Amino acid sequence: MAGNSFGKIFKITTFGESHGEGVGVVIDGCPPGISLSREDFARDMARRRPGRHPGSTPRKEKDRVEIMSGVFEGRTTGAPIALFIRNRDVDSRPYDILRQVFRPGHGDFTYYKKYGHFDFRGGGRYSARETAARVAAGVAAGKILKPLGVKVVAYTLELGSVRAEDINLELIDGSPLYCPDPMASERMEEVISKTGKEGDTLGGIVEVRVTGCPPGLGEPVFDKLDAELAKAVMSVGAVKAVEIGAGLEAARLRGSENNDPITPDGFGSNRAGGILGGISNGDEIVLRAGVKPIPSIGREQDTVDREGHPAKLKLGGRHDVAAIPRIIPVLEAMVKIVLADHFLRARGA
Amino acid sequence: MAGNSFGKIFKITTFGESHGEGVGVVIDGCPPGISLSREDFARDMARRRPGRHPGSTPRKEKDRVEIMSGVFEGRTTGAPIALFIRNRDVDSRPYDILRQVFRPGHGDFTYYKKYGHFDFRGGGRYSARETAARVAAGVAAGKILKPLGVKVVAYTLELGSVRAEDINLELIDGSPLYCPDPMASERMEEVISKTGKEGDTLGGIVEVRVTGCPPGLGEPVFDKLDAELAKAVMSVGAVKAVEIGAGLEAARLRGSENNDPITPDGFGSNRAGGILGGISNGDEIVLRAGVKPIPSIGREQDTVDREGHPAKLKLGGRHDVAAIPRIIPVLEAMVKIVLADHFLRARGA
Amino acid sequence: MAGNSFGKIFKITTFGESHGEGVGVVIDGCPPGISLSREDFARDMARRRPGRHPGSTPRKEKDRVEIMSGVFEGRTTGAPIALFIRNRDVDSRPYDILRQVFRPGHGDFTYYKKYGHFDFRGGGRYSARETAARVAAGVAAGKILKPLGVKVVAYTLELGSVRAEDINLELIDGSPLYCPDPMASERMEEVISKTGKEGDTLGGIVEVRVTGCPPGLGEPVFDKLDAELAKAVMSVGAVKAVEIGAGLEAARLRGSENNDPITPDGFGSNRAGGILGGISNGDEIVLRAGVKPIPSIGREQDTVDREGHPAKLKLGGRHDVAAIPRIIPVLEAMVKIVLADHFLRARGA
Amino acid sequence: MAGNSFGKIFKITTFGESHGEGVGVVIDGCPPGISLSREDFARDMARRRPGRHPGSTPRKEKDRVEIMSGVFEGRTTGAPIALFIRNRDVDSRPYDILRQVFRPGHGDFTYYKKYGHFDFRGGGRYSARETAARVAAGVAAGKILKPLGVKVVAYTLELGSVRAEDINLELIDGSPLYCPDPMASERMEEVISKTGKEGDTLGGIVEVRVTGCPPGLGEPVFDKLDAELAKAVMSVGAVKAVEIGAGLEAARLRGSENNDPITPDGFGSNRAGGILGGISNGDEIVLRAGVKPIPSIGREQDTVDREGHPAKLKLGGRHDVAAIPRIIPVLEAMVKIVLADHFLRARGA
Repeated sequence: MAGNSFGKIFKITTFGESHGEGVGVVIDGCPPGISLSREDFARDMARRRPGRHPGSTPRKEKDRVEIMSGVFEGRTTGAPIALFIRNRDVDSRPYDILRQVFRPGHGDFTYYKKYGHFDFRGGGRYSARETAARVAAGVAAGKILKPLGVKVVAYTLELGSVRAEDINLELIDGSPLYCPDPMASERMEEVISKTGKEGDTLGGIVEVRVTGCPPGLGEPVFDKLDAELAKAVMSVGAVKAVEIGAGLEAARLRGSENNDPITPDGFGSNRAGGILGGISNGDEIVLRAGVKPIPSIGREQDTVDREGHPAKLKLGGRHDVAAIPRIIPVLEAMVKIVLADHFLRARGA
Repeated sequence: MAGNSFGKIFKITTFGESHGEGVGVVIDGCPPGISLSREDFARDMARRRPGRHPGSTPRKEKDRVEIMSGVFEGRTTGAPIALFIRNRDVDSRPYDILRQVFRPGHGDFTYYKKYGHFDFRGGGRYSARETAARVAAGVAAGKILKPLGVKVVAYTLELGSVRAEDINLELIDGSPLYCPDPMASERMEEVISKTGKEGDTLGGIVEVRVTGCPPGLGEPVFDKLDAELAKAVMSVGAVKAVEIGAGLEAARLRGSENNDPITPDGFGSNRAGGILGGISNGDEIVLRAGVKPIPSIGREQDTVDREGHPAKLKLGGRHDVAAIPRIIPVLEAMVKIVLADHFLRARGA
Repeated sequence: MAGNSFGKIFKITTFGESHGEGVGVVIDGCPPGISLSREDFARDMARRRPGRHPGSTPRKEKDRVEIMSGVFEGRTTGAPIALFIRNRDVDSRPYDILRQVFRPGHGDFTYYKKYGHFDFRGGGRYSARETAARVAAGVAAGKILKPLGVKVVAYTLELGSVRAEDINLELIDGSPLYCPDPMASERMEEVISKTGKEGDTLGGIVEVRVTGCPPGLGEPVFDKLDAELAKAVMSVGAVKAVEIGAGLEAARLRGSENNDPITPDGFGSNRAGGILGGISNGDEIVLRAGVKPIPSIGREQDTVDREGHPAKLKLGGRHDVAAIPRIIPVLEAMVKIVLADHFLRARGA
Repeated sequence: MAGNSFGKIFKITTFGESHGEGVGVVIDGCPPGISLSREDFARDMARRRPGRHPGSTPRKEKDRVEIMSGVFEGRTTGAPIALFIRNRDVDSRPYDILRQVFRPGHGDFTYYKKYGHFDFRGGGRYSARETAARVAAGVAAGKILKPLGVKVVAYTLELGSVRAEDINLELIDGSPLYCPDPMASERMEEVISKTGKEGDTLGGIVEVRVTGCPPGLGEPVFDKLDAELAKAVMSVGAVKAVEIGAGLEAARLRGSENNDPITPDGFGSNRAGGILGGISNGDEIVLRAGVKPIPSIGREQDTVDREGHPAKLKLGGRHDVAAIPRIIPVLEAMVKIVLADHFLRARGA
């Protein structure tokens, strides 16, 4: 039983492959009357697009979102919204050498075990290309959240072991790496440049903050807001860890240190990360995603071929040095989708 | 839209409150022909039960699981399996003082905002009592996994900042804290004892390992195995962080360090934690849950009452010092439920 | 993948067997704050109960509904509501002769093919006993509908080829067969009596009418209100046909005859049965269910045993002559469950 | 909460409008390795296409199905299959007079009540155009059923009160109305011709037969095979009645007449229509759909405008005289989708 849908009321189903016609998403459950046009997608698609950031690939996709259904005279109708992003710059040649061997750290091996084949043209369904559809869906989700005053912002907290220390959210867009600490941002760029020259790649940590979220979102006991956010974020390919609020650090605190006091003016601290008992408490929602280094490296690696014989692999082709910062609008999108879904869930019952 | 169900094919729905009749679960989708009897539940229910571990509450629940349906002549029939665990030692008196004020770190505040009421008798639906139903469901899930050779083991990796260093899985059951390092286990007991006397509580980290999992479990792109595990684990009340394999550490590695080489004999390392592209790769699945300290502490805390006026709260009553080790069978159960569900999902299509 | 759940927001999951502990239902998604007590179930459970109607079995079940969870101080909390109806008068002896042979017209044969066993004690999961849980869930659904002014009434339109002609809904409760035409009711009783003496059974037609339903319920294009009602009604064991509004008769009308004119005061006729384009139009919803004769007859029938050898079967035991009128509260319940679910679905988005 | 998805494992989500870009469907859950090409869709799309049958509209859609994803080198990959059928002959002018008034018998009124707007360009989402996506999905479902030997055939049993009496399934394709009785087919054509000239429309009855269906499909107690078929068929716009096997006639039979005897060679009769206890019994599945006359007629009708003022409406434009026979491949498709889904459901657990 496949798993290409996400959400219960604001429900998305993505489709498409990296080297096919394109990628797309059907959103079923977007309320009627919301303004939505092609232009709305431009900013987020651009932030996810390759070729704009330090260390990103030169692949040039225009990534224009076509609205195939569900919008009439500039507004959503309540019918399913189908969005499609055509693949334009598809060049399968560099991947032909990959017909036979599994790339370490990628889904080649497991897709082959599961489906009896794998997409040697660059990952197909498990390529990062799939996340373009998520970003498009996130734009629609954001349209539901905006009139509520809910704002979702993600940024680079750490990259290549360089950590943002002096965080100023207003400086995010000024950094090519969407890092809120300009000094850290510069050092991150240096590390990226150096690592790329060495044919290697880097991981990092993205932090997501949600302001303006009303209390009451999240559905006990399994669809708790933190549980749904964890799934949403972990479903993005490169993510290997999710923390809410104090996260792992909470494991080392005492109850008297970790509990957030409640005052007439709100919570006295926010180690809970804005969620108590799986339900938003009205405070800022804070989560972090640990992002692994991109597995496509320019160094020789040990692997096996389809028959299980040992092989050596050295990748050429176009690859990023880090999934950050391109993963940032993807994580924002997933968080927005969860919040829009839970807002609609809470409204109904 | 409520969220008390989990799983797609092996689907569980829990019900019940800490101070009502009891807690229970309906499992829809357990295949027919599996032996299941009351005795099967004894070990896991006992491990979850209060009053057995250092620093745990003296509350004496027998926690006997009644099979209400779905089993005939000792075997599952394919019909829904209803399991019920009656509350026996219910004493609502200590909680009467809680009618008016919200306990910091608990769901009181958010349930009140969401539902217009909260269960002052000890959490009701958001009490840890609810997890008894999860453990019961996990036993049935385990029955599906056992003939496949899949084994799920969880243990205390860290508690009160004491970390198990010398891990020997065979020593887990010998430790009252299910810690695989006897020396660490002793020190953890000391910290628990000392912290309890100070009216405070502790958090920690639980590690879960799955051996014998076949490759191919997990459904792209949203129901990836790691995404589903993250949700399952994060849906357990006290969990604030989830890591798969190298987890957050992967964010600080380079691609050349983090990629697991593939050899004819399997993977040369396991930083992926047994999952690639969201699909199990046949290697050991490894995940960690960061568990916050129990919020019910014996120290005075700042809070507010229902009207928002400031209040002081000092809890008496029966409370554990740490959710660990009682949370261990709960996390095992959630992992088993995910795996059983995904085994059935993979079998069907 | 099992199918014991129904509804999307007001979601029910039934469990239990005819000769086990009892039957029950978990309702996930009932809004908080609704008054619900044991007494609320009495009327509908009594109407479904055997032994009260002409031609019904003498089996004496008290059918008292126990509220196991989800209600606190007389009101729903928003948590799952578990309801349980204990089996009291279980006598498996009459069924022992059925261990080997399949009863014609029952699910014995198909359950055996599907699950590798069948419940020779009286149907188990496919016994009409299961519908007690549906009736209980319908009571909760009715509590959601009542303040909206929605009223669901079902009655015997036809039984044993006797048809109610002069329909007066106020006379329904005065008829032991819930037939709104007293003269027809009497003739139906005669036919039942005569047929029962001959060891045979009867079918009939139940009509359901919903008044006060607001326009706008039903979700295109698959969860149309008529489609959901058709599934709900057809999922009741004995039903073999479902009609909405003019039903089959519409197939013989011309468009100019079948279209309901729209006037400033509402629709000029109601051949649509209150549903247009799958969405309620504010007019009365009218549907009919064709109910087959009960397959348990006191006459010798041809069948086979588990090994496929020919066998003769003559049933004794306690059996009704017709599923009508006991099926009436069951059909009302299913319609109420659909409407409550769709009311909540429409409210959310 | 919207309802544009159908099926649990073979899950389809349709999108698109009659006068937008086109209509499409995403199929999530089609197993990998199935051959699928553009040509596979030709026959069924042609049978559904307007302009080929007596009394059908001259609208010329090419209805070529584009495979947007999920197929690689001619075979399904296990990834979601997106299919798109572009609207080619879109002429919104005839509909401009419909901006203000609701067409009787259509969804205009109810869509306006539900969504605050309606699609005056020809129905939009509630146009029969949407069924093109269902037919496309049905082709993929058929590919799963074919190797199992399952065959689904639908035909015109009755049209304009002319009923096929002498049924020979081999003659279906020879009739422009897909009627298996050539004499009846001719009379139906005459009635269509005459009725069309009078500006009126006709209804009828379609019968669907499934041969080769293995026993064991269908999931108690709500997702019974007959319940799912009823929903599938009733979700097609014009359908107002669904019968399984003997259908309404069963309501007038006695148990001794209606029960199908079981013999070592199979069932002695098939009044059950191939389904017992909601599970296929291995016999032929037989169902009938009552289809209402098309509501778009060329005669003046009473209606109201958006403000509720009385209005007269006389439709011009391009309209069929009957939904039959174009609805036939749609009903076949829905039955195939249910069977494919239930085959996969049964296989998994």
